[in-house]
Amino acid sequence: MLDQSTICAISTPPGIGGIAVIRLSGTEAVAITEKIFQSPSTDKRLADQRANTLHFGTIKSGDELVDEVVVSLFKAPHSFTGEDIVEISCHGSVYIQQMILQLLISNGASMARPGEFTQRAFLNGKMDLSQAEAVADLIASGNAAAHKLAISQMRGGFSHEIQQLRAELLRFAALVELELDFSEEDVEFANRGALIELSTRISLLLKKLTESFRLGNVIKNGIPVAIIGETNVGKSTLLNALLNEDKAIVSDIHGTTRDVIEDVINIDGTLFRFSDTAGIRETTDLIESMGIERSYNQLEKAEIVLLVTDISGSVQSILNRIVKIRKKIAGQKLIIIANKVDVGPVSSQNQLSGFPLLPNEELVFVAAKSRANLDQLIQMMKRAVNFDSIGLEEVIVSNVRHYEALSRALTAIEKVIEGLKMGISGDFLSQDIRECLHYLGEITGEVSTDEILGHIFKHFCIGK
Amino acid sequence: MLDQSTICAISTPPGIGGIAVIRLSGTEAVAITEKIFQSPSTDKRLADQRANTLHFGTIKSGDELVDEVVVSLFKAPHSFTGEDIVEISCHGSVYIQQMILQLLISNGASMARPGEFTQRAFLNGKMDLSQAEAVADLIASGNAAAHKLAISQMRGGFSHEIQQLRAELLRFAALVELELDFSEEDVEFANRGALIELSTRISLLLKKLTESFRLGNVIKNGIPVAIIGETNVGKSTLLNALLNEDKAIVSDIHGTTRDVIEDVINIDGTLFRFSDTAGIRETTDLIESMGIERSYNQLEKAEIVLLVTDISGSVQSILNRIVKIRKKIAGQKLIIIANKVDVGPVSSQNQLSGFPLLPNEELVFVAAKSRANLDQLIQMMKRAVNFDSIGLEEVIVSNVRHYEALSRALTAIEKVIEGLKMGISGDFLSQDIRECLHYLGEITGEVSTDEILGHIFKHFCIGK
Repeated sequence: MLDQSTICAISTPPGIGGIAVIRLSGTEAVAITEKIFQSPSTDKRLADQRANTLHFGTIKSGDELVDEVVVSLFKAPHSFTGEDIVEISCHGSVYIQQMILQLLISNGASMARPGEFTQRAFLNGKMDLSQAEAVADLIASGNAAAHKLAISQMRGGFSHEIQQLRAELLRFAALVELELDFSEEDVEFANRGALIELSTRISLLLKKLTESFRLGNVIKNGIPVAIIGETNVGKSTLLNALLNEDKAIVSDIHGTTRDVIEDVINIDGTLFRFSDTAGIRETTDLIESMGIERSYNQLEKAEIVLLVTDISGSVQSILNRIVKIRKKIAGQKLIIIANKVDVGPVSSQNQLSGFPLLPNEELVFVAAKSRANLDQLIQMMKRAVNFDSIGLEEVIVSNVRHYEALSRALTAIEKVIEGLKMGISGDFLSQDIRECLHYLGEITGEVSTDEILGHIFKHFCIGK
Repeated sequence: MLDQSTICAISTPPGIGGIAVIRLSGTEAVAITEKIFQSPSTDKRLADQRANTLHFGTIKSGDELVDEVVVSLFKAPHSFTGEDIVEISCHGSVYIQQMILQLLISNGASMARPGEFTQRAFLNGKMDLSQAEAVADLIASGNAAAHKLAISQMRGGFSHEIQQLRAELLRFAALVELELDFSEEDVEFANRGALIELSTRISLLLKKLTESFRLGNVIKNGIPVAIIGETNVGKSTLLNALLNEDKAIVSDIHGTTRDVIEDVINIDGTLFRFSDTAGIRETTDLIESMGIERSYNQLEKAEIVLLVTDISGSVQSILNRIVKIRKKIAGQKLIIIANKVDVGPVSSQNQLSGFPLLPNEELVFVAAKSRANLDQLIQMMKRAVNFDSIGLEEVIVSNVRHYEALSRALTAIEKVIEGLKMGISGDFLSQDIRECLHYLGEITGEVSTDEILGHIFKHFCIGK
């Protein structure tokens, strides 16, 4: 499975900069570099130099000088990939970067595939699979919370604990299977009490981890916020006002349904994923009612529901709306936005303010058009999902592949526990244990296929 | 003049990549890094490590882990800037890059200005000014010829020769000025014959260098190509066809006059700068004739003139056009393009082929619309200015600042020679020598002002 060729790639971001770094990894990394690199001390050979040292010199293409560079030397196994690594730090012109890459390739290196350096680190045992995946997450993370998650996962995260429990379970699996070999003698090598105890510990951990995915997912992909309200209450104006805040970075993501457009906004380091849904009102039109159905579906997926109402209209209809929406949500934060406060009568504001709210509800008066009170709304939204409390010690799953494997392992271990309690036979027990072992192993890469690896690493950038 | 603060900047191209490099330079570079960097061996201190070594560790913000990094250590004076340099190689997420930069700044580093690392290298005597300028040219160079020029200049180029001649001239200046102190005694310390010999050598070098600027400029900024021809002969179609060649990279540059649009195209590594000029024809309209005047101005600036004609029309009018254009150009390559060859009669082609061409002229039949024979045209254009013959040993000036200083130095040294021949008095002679010394010194930076430095380095990228 382990490719023996020496790979190379530009590892720094694409484009022009002060410097760029071209990375080589593999047994021939030093030898290939030596063919195009010349130190000012003509008798100096890179191969004779110590690991973790820097060397100034020139890169030449035949007689032609390509650049003055600094070469970093890392030696196997003490390197990122576990192989010999050479990093060539050159001037950051695109022309020079391409020229050095071409020289390396024509001297025997091959172009690295996306994530191939990290894949080699995994294959060489420098990190487990979930740590390797965290490298890509780390590079992609654009806010504090996502960064925190990724770096915790890269440093080991929950995979050490998983590995350890899996090793214990593996020992039991061996004992149970040994029993099968002696099935005629009706012996019991595996202590059933200890196995129940271990399985329970595993299931508790898996439950905690799968439950953390809801949080991990919103940290990584943004907190889902559903904006609902009747037509003409100013939903779009509000969304645009939020988008246009100075602090907002915007990217458009088209939702899975045609009627729902998602906008991801970074507000003070927290990602929010807004779904602007179809206006919700009573209707007899079939097509329109389908759109409204979809709006309600968005509510279920949301962490925060923004109910936008028009305070310049009837207060009673706002109150009716609140009562109706309450039936559709369960546990999400409901923020009732009384829009158009600049034109709404003070008496309406007083009336609405007096309405008793539930613990998961808040009320805010804004004028989306003039941006009045938007800050207050943003603060409410940020309070709704408080990421600052996340410590590095807390274990949070943010990777959907891990979540799926953990869920399957949980199902399997629950069957094991159930089976043990019902005293089922060793061969059925063994099958469930094996299934749990398989899914636990998939997370850390103790069980991996080319297909899984291919899928994981193709999403990496080249050069990492 | 030398800023003592420790500066930092992201030196790799902006954006997301596998890795990014943050560079620090200054007396506090190691101490500031030490405040946020932690080696796995807790008793390891960066300050105690040897120069040109690499160190793995973590960057922390308080208790919070920011990233796992590799730190490169360079020590004064053996570094790019001549100061202590630390390069932090981190994961290439924008978030991490910004976070590390902020940490460095909050621990006492200041943000580097554009080109400040290179400026410090100049101020610390690691390179002369023309070499420093070449660093920016090298990073910006997008083709083989421009790269060759920049790297030759960065390696010293003509500045060593200039420095040496300037030192000799300076000695004469001192002797001539000494004569002035003894003017009553009518002594002659400076040997006039030797001074004429030196001045002549200097003037020959300066002539060669200033003359090379025409070539250096086209290498750096593209070969100016003027496209002319009557309206409706297919000029725009031809330009678009050239732009749309697979090998072409295009950028739009608006010309200084409103009627001239410039397109820069990179064809097989050679830059061409096309000016599409107003159609040239006889006119009595004043405004239009002004446009035509501008078209003829473009001819003067061009290295290559493409005369586009329509072979499907009258051959006699094409011949008249050639005769007319010949009067307007002097030394430029004239390529006569007989367009619409797919519809033009063979008899017209034969007639045009028989027309006697001058040595600087070529004729090519094309059909711009169907791209027929475009390759032949491109080959002609590439042959017109042959850059492949440029060796590293050849000295070519490509920097307009150098060209201006060289031209002024040349004027001054010619006055010196003239004065010597006419036997003018030492005080006048000394003034001209001083002027020549001044302009020669400006090139290498032996004479420099904050204004000159500010102007040069503001065009650098940050981090270099």
